[in-house]
Amino acid sequence: MPNEVKSLNEECGVFGIWGSEDAAELTYLGLHTLQHRGQEGAGIVSLTPMGVRRHRGLGLLSEVFAQPDQLRELYGRASLGHVRYATAGGRILENIQPLLFRFSDQSIALAHNGNLTNAQSLRRQLEAQGAIFQSTSDTEVLMHLIRRSDKIGFDAQLDQALNTVQGGFAFMLLTEHALYAASDPNGFRPLVIGRLANGAVVICSETAALTAVGAQFVRDVQPGEVIRVDNTGMHSHAYTKRTQLAVCAMEFIYFARPDSTIHGVNVHQARVRLGEQLAREQPTPDGDIVCGVPNSSLSAAIGYARESGLPYEMGLVKSQYIARTFIQPTQALREKSVRMKLSAIPEVVAGKNVVLVDDSIVRGTTAIQIVKLLRAAGAKSVHLRISSPPLRFPCFYGIDIQTMDQLMAAQYTVSEMRDRLDVDTLGFLSVTGLEEGIGLRSDAPHHGLCTAYFTGDYPTELGDYETSYQAELALRPINLEEVSA
Amino acid sequence: MPNEVKSLNEECGVFGIWGSEDAAELTYLGLHTLQHRGQEGAGIVSLTPMGVRRHRGLGLLSEVFAQPDQLRELYGRASLGHVRYATAGGRILENIQPLLFRFSDQSIALAHNGNLTNAQSLRRQLEAQGAIFQSTSDTEVLMHLIRRSDKIGFDAQLDQALNTVQGGFAFMLLTEHALYAASDPNGFRPLVIGRLANGAVVICSETAALTAVGAQFVRDVQPGEVIRVDNTGMHSHAYTKRTQLAVCAMEFIYFARPDSTIHGVNVHQARVRLGEQLAREQPTPDGDIVCGVPNSSLSAAIGYARESGLPYEMGLVKSQYIARTFIQPTQALREKSVRMKLSAIPEVVAGKNVVLVDDSIVRGTTAIQIVKLLRAAGAKSVHLRISSPPLRFPCFYGIDIQTMDQLMAAQYTVSEMRDRLDVDTLGFLSVTGLEEGIGLRSDAPHHGLCTAYFTGDYPTELGDYETSYQAELALRPINLEEVSA
Amino acid sequence: MPNEVKSLNEECGVFGIWGSEDAAELTYLGLHTLQHRGQEGAGIVSLTPMGVRRHRGLGLLSEVFAQPDQLRELYGRASLGHVRYATAGGRILENIQPLLFRFSDQSIALAHNGNLTNAQSLRRQLEAQGAIFQSTSDTEVLMHLIRRSDKIGFDAQLDQALNTVQGGFAFMLLTEHALYAASDPNGFRPLVIGRLANGAVVICSETAALTAVGAQFVRDVQPGEVIRVDNTGMHSHAYTKRTQLAVCAMEFIYFARPDSTIHGVNVHQARVRLGEQLAREQPTPDGDIVCGVPNSSLSAAIGYARESGLPYEMGLVKSQYIARTFIQPTQALREKSVRMKLSAIPEVVAGKNVVLVDDSIVRGTTAIQIVKLLRAAGAKSVHLRISSPPLRFPCFYGIDIQTMDQLMAAQYTVSEMRDRLDVDTLGFLSVTGLEEGIGLRSDAPHHGLCTAYFTGDYPTELGDYETSYQAELALRPINLEEVSA
Amino acid sequence: MPNEVKSLNEECGVFGIWGSEDAAELTYLGLHTLQHRGQEGAGIVSLTPMGVRRHRGLGLLSEVFAQPDQLRELYGRASLGHVRYATAGGRILENIQPLLFRFSDQSIALAHNGNLTNAQSLRRQLEAQGAIFQSTSDTEVLMHLIRRSDKIGFDAQLDQALNTVQGGFAFMLLTEHALYAASDPNGFRPLVIGRLANGAVVICSETAALTAVGAQFVRDVQPGEVIRVDNTGMHSHAYTKRTQLAVCAMEFIYFARPDSTIHGVNVHQARVRLGEQLAREQPTPDGDIVCGVPNSSLSAAIGYARESGLPYEMGLVKSQYIARTFIQPTQALREKSVRMKLSAIPEVVAGKNVVLVDDSIVRGTTAIQIVKLLRAAGAKSVHLRISSPPLRFPCFYGIDIQTMDQLMAAQYTVSEMRDRLDVDTLGFLSVTGLEEGIGLRSDAPHHGLCTAYFTGDYPTELGDYETSYQAELALRPINLEEVSA
Repeated sequence: MPNEVKSLNEECGVFGIWGSEDAAELTYLGLHTLQHRGQEGAGIVSLTPMGVRRHRGLGLLSEVFAQPDQLRELYGRASLGHVRYATAGGRILENIQPLLFRFSDQSIALAHNGNLTNAQSLRRQLEAQGAIFQSTSDTEVLMHLIRRSDKIGFDAQLDQALNTVQGGFAFMLLTEHALYAASDPNGFRPLVIGRLANGAVVICSETAALTAVGAQFVRDVQPGEVIRVDNTGMHSHAYTKRTQLAVCAMEFIYFARPDSTIHGVNVHQARVRLGEQLAREQPTPDGDIVCGVPNSSLSAAIGYARESGLPYEMGLVKSQYIARTFIQPTQALREKSVRMKLSAIPEVVAGKNVVLVDDSIVRGTTAIQIVKLLRAAGAKSVHLRISSPPLRFPCFYGIDIQTMDQLMAAQYTVSEMRDRLDVDTLGFLSVTGLEEGIGLRSDAPHHGLCTAYFTGDYPTELGDYETSYQAELALRPINLEEVSA
Repeated sequence: MPNEVKSLNEECGVFGIWGSEDAAELTYLGLHTLQHRGQEGAGIVSLTPMGVRRHRGLGLLSEVFAQPDQLRELYGRASLGHVRYATAGGRILENIQPLLFRFSDQSIALAHNGNLTNAQSLRRQLEAQGAIFQSTSDTEVLMHLIRRSDKIGFDAQLDQALNTVQGGFAFMLLTEHALYAASDPNGFRPLVIGRLANGAVVICSETAALTAVGAQFVRDVQPGEVIRVDNTGMHSHAYTKRTQLAVCAMEFIYFARPDSTIHGVNVHQARVRLGEQLAREQPTPDGDIVCGVPNSSLSAAIGYARESGLPYEMGLVKSQYIARTFIQPTQALREKSVRMKLSAIPEVVAGKNVVLVDDSIVRGTTAIQIVKLLRAAGAKSVHLRISSPPLRFPCFYGIDIQTMDQLMAAQYTVSEMRDRLDVDTLGFLSVTGLEEGIGLRSDAPHHGLCTAYFTGDYPTELGDYETSYQAELALRPINLEEVSA
Repeated sequence: MPNEVKSLNEECGVFGIWGSEDAAELTYLGLHTLQHRGQEGAGIVSLTPMGVRRHRGLGLLSEVFAQPDQLRELYGRASLGHVRYATAGGRILENIQPLLFRFSDQSIALAHNGNLTNAQSLRRQLEAQGAIFQSTSDTEVLMHLIRRSDKIGFDAQLDQALNTVQGGFAFMLLTEHALYAASDPNGFRPLVIGRLANGAVVICSETAALTAVGAQFVRDVQPGEVIRVDNTGMHSHAYTKRTQLAVCAMEFIYFARPDSTIHGVNVHQARVRLGEQLAREQPTPDGDIVCGVPNSSLSAAIGYARESGLPYEMGLVKSQYIARTFIQPTQALREKSVRMKLSAIPEVVAGKNVVLVDDSIVRGTTAIQIVKLLRAAGAKSVHLRISSPPLRFPCFYGIDIQTMDQLMAAQYTVSEMRDRLDVDTLGFLSVTGLEEGIGLRSDAPHHGLCTAYFTGDYPTELGDYETSYQAELALRPINLEEVSA
Repeated sequence: MPNEVKSLNEECGVFGIWGSEDAAELTYLGLHTLQHRGQEGAGIVSLTPMGVRRHRGLGLLSEVFAQPDQLRELYGRASLGHVRYATAGGRILENIQPLLFRFSDQSIALAHNGNLTNAQSLRRQLEAQGAIFQSTSDTEVLMHLIRRSDKIGFDAQLDQALNTVQGGFAFMLLTEHALYAASDPNGFRPLVIGRLANGAVVICSETAALTAVGAQFVRDVQPGEVIRVDNTGMHSHAYTKRTQLAVCAMEFIYFARPDSTIHGVNVHQARVRLGEQLAREQPTPDGDIVCGVPNSSLSAAIGYARESGLPYEMGLVKSQYIARTFIQPTQALREKSVRMKLSAIPEVVAGKNVVLVDDSIVRGTTAIQIVKLLRAAGAKSVHLRISSPPLRFPCFYGIDIQTMDQLMAAQYTVSEMRDRLDVDTLGFLSVTGLEEGIGLRSDAPHHGLCTAYFTGDYPTELGDYETSYQAELALRPINLEEVSA
């Protein structure tokens, strides 16, 4: 789960509900469960007896809803909520979602998880036609496309807009008449449907949020599908036929909660299998103990220990309190904050050959600090095992890595990385091992996963990013053999 | 000055400056001086070395800028500020000005004092064409018109937009290249130009704000004029030739600061003359003392006392502290708050025939309370003298009275008002007395004043308001003889 | 009224009530009316059904009680409130009153207006005996004396404590059984008793607060008197017989609200008489207009104009909004803030010989700024008339001037002051004129007034201050002839 | 670590440092590491160049120090900090530590972890002698004893005071001349000494905080010892000879961080041994998986799995975000909040015989909820194993359980508990198993542990609590056989 010790961030979590008296309270509970998907802003829009109301703010959910009245005034039968990780747009209130559009005749709320690959060009076109944007986020493009659509009726306008935007997206909209959810043609971002005992429908980013509010899981939203929930029930249709499943592999590796299940695969169990596969691919003959980097790598460490027969140990302890002074997402502060977040237990690691299991290496800055912690605590040797392949390519579908110079593995070979991280040995999981370990039952390429950041094999065209990506590639030739290995 | 004891509110004060290192600080000082024009929100946008920045918030200027950093971060050579009184749009942050529009290529700030008579129909048309508004305020219409203009160049686009909107307006815009100010064809809302010793140009709502920042008064912005200030200097042109001066008379009677001067007439002195004229038109033969309702009526009371020869006294005391509990602008709270704001001095008024001078009567609720205060303090009789004619018609150009049922004089005759206010006698100033007392040197009708709320003689077409206004008129036939008297 | 344009501050306002369901709300209203007596902190203690509760904070009353719940939770039948001006103790929460002492068996609240002349030596003695103080304010001494008294019963202990402290004080205490008020043997600080229609008793600093809550004035608390109000009614006794009235003259000149009455004399009317007397003593033969420094000097200006026959004019305008950036009470900021608080009306003063009436001159810094304002606005000459004698000596009874180097008139002769203030002529009221103008009906010296800051004639011994005062006197020989003049 | 899923709370964490330029920053870091010991208030006092300064507030450290200036203004060479869990005293600012006493001649800060058994009677005696307390907390008693001591010199006065108070305490004091730390004669509460590279001395509650600030562990503060650190170095002496080690066993079981070491025993490793011993004493022959209640029971679960040979699994997931709505420590809210804090992974537990390892059962409310979670997730059976003996007796030395009716095991037999918790089997660790598992090297009774809450064998007299404790015992006869088992 993010807000972890590393610098890999996704943009959002969404939670919508239609048809329950306590819609706002349940949305609060649901967003609390999704807080790991975004800690820099939160908001809820509700259809209240007093009209459409919103409360949003910068910070954690508990900070944004610090006064009881702030939630109470959202009392109503339908709500849409959002937690946000700040990306390029910057930490300004205008960007906190749900965006709320108040038209003369109605109000519409919009929330989004993902990233559009043609947002910049669309925005430029729309502005040339006189459109005015209220935020600096990509999300708003969708509403302008809807409002300028020449189709008749909101549903047809939405379909047209969804067919115009490209990239990875899970959109949710709340109008005064219905709740909508839509997934991109590849289903990059998870979106699941549940139902409460009272019949209300819940749609949100992860099944854990369904559980939190007591909703029964119904099914995943499918690639290219639009769900509409209104007082007549739940309705589904495809806004496009050109779909192919490509779920973001990092959801399984790092982002999602271990108690969530995506397209039939439980996240914790997938991670255990990745750890087991890693132990087979990258064994550590002289290892004494296996430690995971808390909390996101503990599952993989359990798997590694189980498969290798080495004892699972708690060599690292994670603080459960946020070190606010260092919360801003700049590179310098990220490094410093490791020591406030993690510590080693000398009695556990001293004199031991430690197998350290981590789920991924992004910049490598956190890993360097952790290795230092272990060595300072007396570890005899540190064998770093990564339960995913090297991250070598940018993501354009919602993960906050859009240039290769942010990726250690895009700049160095594995042996160079080993030296820079100051570990005795370093081993990554293979792409094949990853795909089989996760084990999605899909005929799509990569077993239905998007593994572009490992392989450079992007499921879509790159749109606005194509030119700069090609320029980066030209500068930094990746060792394809290693990649394919 | 508003935030007085009555319920007559205008929408805004504006202050812009181009070409001074301390632009943000001066804007803060200027807005402080204009705070009486709006107490429910404030904001400043600056061109800083770090780009275009804004800080805004709900409440008084001193509440919005409560932390030193909030002003410090606006450091730059050009700023635009705004204080706002909440009208129909409601007390939401989105409506606090300056509005700031961040386009792909540039950012533009927009601030407004006034009211557009065709904003609703324009907004409906624009939305039908796909426009999305970020606020519920009329102001935003101008920016959409600019962005959709088919003219070449910002200045031509602005001219076209200004020729499209109707009503009373004083717009100011800050682009990254220039500061703009524009007045409607009637010049309803005051807007003045000043110059600092360092050459910087200041444009704002009242001359008192020029004085506060040490700027020399240059001239008033003229009806139908656009001023552009950039690094090459100050430029002026007329966006329309169809102009006719009609300055809001209430600026002189009540809104503006006594130390401001509008189109050559000092506000305090105009009020003194209104009081003198009132003493001639509505003498009080058996009066013992003259008291004004603090603070806006003190000037007129001085004039009345001077002309009548009766002693000027301080019968009422106004608290200088805001009674926050009661700050919300609802009718019920307005009534209660009088006693927290005003008190009588029994030793002054007991046993006396009191001539009470007030500048105007809106709902009458405040006047009723003040008369009660004086009678409870032992006044022998109360003779209410109003230094303006009866307010009988709505204003569509920026004063917060858009229906006649909010106006006591639209519902009752003067003798009925006298009974309801429980005063011994009641006398108003005539329209002629008002026009001559203010004494603008203008050949335009009503000596260059807008007196529509007294006479029903509106200088413009009423646009979106025409239908509902006619419906109101039909229900409530005004005694035209009294009006013309 | 303080928070005016000058730097003369008193320490506090107190308001207590016993026996009304809405005690807390009335205390809030009462403190609002007394806000001019202290703007840097406020607090209310109530006997609620849930026990003794307090809310207090730094800032204005409306800032301290910013949330509705903060007042609501104080709901009860008896309350004690306080507004505070920060003195030596510093702006820390611990010093904000009422102080609340929670003993094992009961809780007692304590509020104070005044200054004790033997607090430091008492505190040192008490600490030597093991006492621990929770605040740095003098007030707390009283409670330690009560708790260490060897008398039987709270009333006897309080009497003993009151006989131990010296100086100027108006104490109020709220126990779980009664509300107490006590005045020092000279009655330096005003304290008045009122009664509500429902029988509840109110005791507070000024009659204006009685009026604000709808209470009928009963009488002033007398020097050396203790009032106890409990469920059996109101009880009075003298804790000392050695009393002699010496009301602080500055209450009439500057501090108190014009609508308050102290020992039978209305404050506004006293100020008018001081202005009239000043016109007789210090006429201005060639004056054109009379202007007062708003708001505290307007009454005296009316008196001066009336007696001199010169027209009363509004040459200066005071902003009704607080310039928060400059609210801190340091010398540097006090000077700067004048221009944010006051402005001149050029059209009124240009080319005129202006008689400027001010109530007093402390440091002179404000007066210098005002004269500059008038000259910049074109005044032909400025004749400064002060409606009180020169302030030459420190006050040890509650006014925030405890050293002579803060007083312009202690350092310069009147003619030197005239030059430094850059006025054409300067005239002060005589001590005799002051005493007769105020007109207290008392046989005590100075007609029952304390005029020590004018005459050096202190009604009490100076206690802890004696040594440093004598040292100052030795350094700065006052021209006694001028003083006696 | 507390703020865990159960309702067992300790009062405080302390952190003091003498002799480092960045004392306040290090104290902030240290308190962050000790945040688990108290989340309801935090404060830091520093010796700054501007004098002794304090900042404190209600809430988490990151909330109390929300503005950069708040820490910056504490810049100095010595600091004392505290994090607090609210007990009887209530959540009022006055109780937030360090308490700061400003005497005429100096200022002294005081911080405390523990509970005094004779505080009430001492307070009553002191009040009878005239003492006034500023807080409702026990801590303040010590300062009154010091100030009333008849000894000469601060050190002797402190010794006398320490010999007067009874119970469990770790006191720290910061005077302007030295930093002091003192442990009670039994050393109930941990207190450790470390040293920075620059020679500065750090004393705090846990070694993890030493590590966090980069200090080398020196040694534990011993029972009955006073440490004084000043510019001449570190000094130690015994204020009493009558000492006997009785470290709170719950520090090992639950309170302390796993990366801390107390009297030579690492906490995580002690917990692993308790889990191993538990597996031997209370095996689960048909168990399928072993799950710990995160986070405090994970170590014991690892031990249980290791000894039993059953697979260690992650059946429960803990949210890392605080559910603020439910943060208040009332019984009703504690129950509700479990679901916001914990969730089960159905894919892990469904169809399995789950061995659930928890470290203790207090009220049982949390355990009931967790069992419900597991059963709802499909667990075939739930075998609850507790890595400590039944909690049957109150604690008077600093744990927030002072009456037996708060303890499930004081009211029910183990078989009754099994039924009420709805588990298939329930097994506790024996007292002997506990003592040996922790393995302190001490000749004192119970191997140097206090196990009174398990055995009723209190290391000290109970003082003020004796009477009510005996009354409780009389009502609720404990099955002594079971206890001894």
